[in-house]
Amino acid sequence: MTAPLTPPPEKNARPATHRNLGIDSDRLWASIHETAQIGGTPKGGINRQALTTTDREVRDWFKAACEACGCTVTVDGLGSMFARRPGRHPTLPPIAIGSHLDTQPTGGRYDGVLGVLAGLEILRALDDSGHITNAPIEVINWTNEEGARFAPAMLTSGVFAGVFTQDYAESRQDRTGTSFGTALDGIGYRGTAKAHPISAHFELHIEQGPILEAEGATIGIVTGVQSIRWYEITVTGADSHAGTTPMHLRHDAMLAAARMIAAMADIAASHGPDAKATVGLVECRPNRRNAVPGEVFFSLDLRHPEDHVVASMDAQAQTIITRLAEAGGVQATISMTWESPAVHFNPSCIEAVERATLAAGLPHRRIVSGAGHDSAYIARIAPTTMVFIPCAGGLSHNEAESATQTDIAAGADVLLRAVLDLDSQFEETQA
Amino acid sequence: MTAPLTPPPEKNARPATHRNLGIDSDRLWASIHETAQIGGTPKGGINRQALTTTDREVRDWFKAACEACGCTVTVDGLGSMFARRPGRHPTLPPIAIGSHLDTQPTGGRYDGVLGVLAGLEILRALDDSGHITNAPIEVINWTNEEGARFAPAMLTSGVFAGVFTQDYAESRQDRTGTSFGTALDGIGYRGTAKAHPISAHFELHIEQGPILEAEGATIGIVTGVQSIRWYEITVTGADSHAGTTPMHLRHDAMLAAARMIAAMADIAASHGPDAKATVGLVECRPNRRNAVPGEVFFSLDLRHPEDHVVASMDAQAQTIITRLAEAGGVQATISMTWESPAVHFNPSCIEAVERATLAAGLPHRRIVSGAGHDSAYIARIAPTTMVFIPCAGGLSHNEAESATQTDIAAGADVLLRAVLDLDSQFEETQA
Repeated sequence: MTAPLTPPPEKNARPATHRNLGIDSDRLWASIHETAQIGGTPKGGINRQALTTTDREVRDWFKAACEACGCTVTVDGLGSMFARRPGRHPTLPPIAIGSHLDTQPTGGRYDGVLGVLAGLEILRALDDSGHITNAPIEVINWTNEEGARFAPAMLTSGVFAGVFTQDYAESRQDRTGTSFGTALDGIGYRGTAKAHPISAHFELHIEQGPILEAEGATIGIVTGVQSIRWYEITVTGADSHAGTTPMHLRHDAMLAAARMIAAMADIAASHGPDAKATVGLVECRPNRRNAVPGEVFFSLDLRHPEDHVVASMDAQAQTIITRLAEAGGVQATISMTWESPAVHFNPSCIEAVERATLAAGLPHRRIVSGAGHDSAYIARIAPTTMVFIPCAGGLSHNEAESATQTDIAAGADVLLRAVLDLDSQFEETQA
Repeated sequence: MTAPLTPPPEKNARPATHRNLGIDSDRLWASIHETAQIGGTPKGGINRQALTTTDREVRDWFKAACEACGCTVTVDGLGSMFARRPGRHPTLPPIAIGSHLDTQPTGGRYDGVLGVLAGLEILRALDDSGHITNAPIEVINWTNEEGARFAPAMLTSGVFAGVFTQDYAESRQDRTGTSFGTALDGIGYRGTAKAHPISAHFELHIEQGPILEAEGATIGIVTGVQSIRWYEITVTGADSHAGTTPMHLRHDAMLAAARMIAAMADIAASHGPDAKATVGLVECRPNRRNAVPGEVFFSLDLRHPEDHVVASMDAQAQTIITRLAEAGGVQATISMTWESPAVHFNPSCIEAVERATLAAGLPHRRIVSGAGHDSAYIARIAPTTMVFIPCAGGLSHNEAESATQTDIAAGADVLLRAVLDLDSQFEETQA
């Protein structure tokens, strides 16, 4: 990764200095709440699903805002937007700040939006100060991170990272049968930009969990994304009449499933504080008050920062489910439907965030992301990390999602400092 | 209960004897399978819900069959049909044999139907033999026993017994908003017969449970109907993200509910082999794979032959649900939605069935009905009991419901013998 030294463009011919360079908390806060009106819901959240007219509207707003502070906005073949501010060394791959402007159908104001608009605020702050970075700075709005309209989630960052093909992404359909490609053309956001090298990828995001708030930390220095496995379990017994079937002659699928669900929590408990086991979806059949249930279907979600721990939980779950099925006179089938190995973020990026946090004097902790993010895919092709800030009650994917202006400003400040920290390393490299 | 001795009508002027008096197994079997075509389903069951055109069709068939063996059929204001064969003492209240010809939407061929058609077979057998009973014999087809179209179940036997009012029954609506009264007029089965005293009420029914089959008994001598209480439990925690919420910060309504459901079975086990606890209906919300459930609604059905045992189970359930809610960091509300006290059938009727069973040399056991039946209400106003026969696998309310011709004939034979036994007591009384 070498690039010839070239003189900075005349417009930005000011010394590379952090003097007068800082994010404007009120401006960032205003951007968040101004764009929240685009697809805003009566309950104060946002319904701005990917490639809808409201998505087009916020894209237009974002493009204009980036161009207004001297950036060039390009769009790739899946609608992802790249707002680039030139650096001193134009052939250096850009340092990227990415997240997403699409939301869940009943989404909040911060999930994804914060990451993109904090990037915009950094572009504006750089423009205000006239600071010239070594590498270009590129703020990215990844299309369809949520996967709420077009499954799966993180679709276009996945294509960018080579996880999915372009054709696969374009052929995804929403519930009405409209394809991603058709919807993309419909809002006029199919571009020609190609996937390109990036020096690093930073993403500021609300935690979407309760840990930072519970521990009084403002900054989560994200070291990776935990390992995840999803399962479907079907428990098959025999329907019978609740009034006429003695307990010892029953094959009660719900009773057996209840014991299994309780056991899954015990498995998590035995694997330490970072292990999680969740049964979020349960279907009981025939689901009548006076019928002993003959079949229960439930999901199981196992997570831990380390793959080997998830593998150990998997083995225990299989054993216990099998044993409880036998004890309950029922059958159980278990199938793994998804596996996402642990992601370990780049140490240099993590350290840059850590130095920035210490410099800002903010309470912090290292944390592993429990949820998926565009950064999880981008980490496969570029040095990557994330910065978390608290959200009230850990609530997310909910119109009541909230974060404070103070924490948002702190997160954006850390993001700016980390980007400049990393960028300063290029100076040394290039010098 | 006295009535003047009057000479029997000329037509039946034969001596009161059991000679040549017995049920015709093939004829009964044929009646069951002939009428099963009325509302018959492709899977071999019956969909003949109350007051539909198929219900009218089977009523017409039943009326004609009863009249063909010398009975008079009257209909009351709710469509219940009374096919009466005169006895020697016309002022004696009739000995009734009742059940129902309506079915569940995916009902079997025997539930209810067996009781009415075994009654018809007895009328035919009496007619064939010319036997004159002391009391009139009345075979009753109770309207809407199932409650599948018009809730609640056992609606018209309930009115007959004074549990519900006529107006209440007529105003019940099906899912399309059609009232019972309108549907009744629609099939032309609103009559003028009034509720009247009956000497006794016998009902032959499939067990709808697995006990007789499991123990190799042909006849269940039914001593009563168990005590039943129904509850609705709502467990309220907090939705959260399965990936980002550590186990110790969760308020997982499904995990708490699972522990409660398992505990309910333990409560039943601690109250002996006749106690039953069933959680048949479970609704998990938001019911997504990656969300910790914030709310679970479930039903609880507690049963035991004795009221005081159900009361004890109730107290334990309340205590344990409250304790598990507290331990799980969730709230739980418990409300009792239905209570049906234990019914104890009439000792004289029970003994008549027992003598009949012993005389027939059939393997038998005393049993408590787990399900509700018309007899449970009629027991409030007349000496009542029931006779159970096995059904394959205990399966009922299912198109695959089945019973053997041998067991059906045995049950009808016991029913006839028990009716004649009870009737013979009138002879002594009247002599």
